[in-house]
Amino acid sequence: MIIMGIDPGLARLGYGVIRKPKVKGEKFKALDYDCIETSPDLSVGERLKKISDEVENLIKKYKPELICVENIYFFKNLKTAMPVSQAKGVILLAAAKKKIRVLEVSPLEVKMTLVGYGRADKKQVQKMVERLVVLTKKTIKLDDTADALGNAVCGALKG
Amino acid sequence: MIIMGIDPGLARLGYGVIRKPKVKGEKFKALDYDCIETSPDLSVGERLKKISDEVENLIKKYKPELICVENIYFFKNLKTAMPVSQAKGVILLAAAKKKIRVLEVSPLEVKMTLVGYGRADKKQVQKMVERLVVLTKKTIKLDDTADALGNAVCGALKG
Repeated sequence: MIIMGIDPGLARLGYGVIRKPKVKGEKFKALDYDCIETSPDLSVGERLKKISDEVENLIKKYKPELICVENIYFFKNLKTAMPVSQAKGVILLAAAKKKIRVLEVSPLEVKMTLVGYGRADKKQVQKMVERLVVLTKKTIKLDDTADALGNAVCGALKG
Repeated sequence: MIIMGIDPGLARLGYGVIRKPKVKGEKFKALDYDCIETSPDLSVGERLKKISDEVENLIKKYKPELICVENIYFFKNLKTAMPVSQAKGVILLAAAKKKIRVLEVSPLEVKMTLVGYGRADKKQVQKMVERLVVLTKKTIKLDDTADALGNAVCGALKG
């Protein structure tokens, strides 16, 4: 089973694609993980189109059965909520077009599922990701990518 | 010139398509206006897909040169901001896919442009829409549709 995790954002959208092991106890295998970046010089529509095109290509390439998107309830302010929600809308649309199941996971659920502690920090989550997943690159460059992989692992463990 | 106005929303998305008169002083002509409604029984992705499909069909049919979308800065709460922003993201994506120019208009701009008074109420805006636009149906059924037509007229007058 292939699972794609997404950390939505307009400027940076993290993604991670993992394969769930057939044998229990074996590690997940990362197939791809990175960050889609869009320039503020583009219009919002053009940025969303870039995200949509790249995510649709990833879906076509890896054919995930499940897409896990971060569900954020609290934002520092509305200015952050709007672009993140716009990017998330485009992801949910891409999933619906291919009839792929979507699971929304909150940062709290990810921490509880991976670390077992709701107040775990980003580093602890990242360490657990590195312990549970066979990575293909030496490092995970950005937080957004780490979060996306965390969402994928959480979704894979939860269902 | 064909202009499409949109009042974004997940449960109800109003749209209005108008033609700008070639001769100054003549009225705008409404080509189409209605409301796309999506059921809460569907997943958010499925609702966004319905909106995307219907708006893409409208774009294909009327080939607007300009799409005017409501730009809301203030929400009663975040729970409203998220679905509206998701729907708006899907609209901006549809416009970008066809390289159609987008103009974001605030409710204040619409009131100022149509009524000349920033605190005008919905009824005053609607009356001006009915005065400036030749409508094809007897009534505008929903506020969302009226707002979408108001956005289109505002965009047409502003540029």
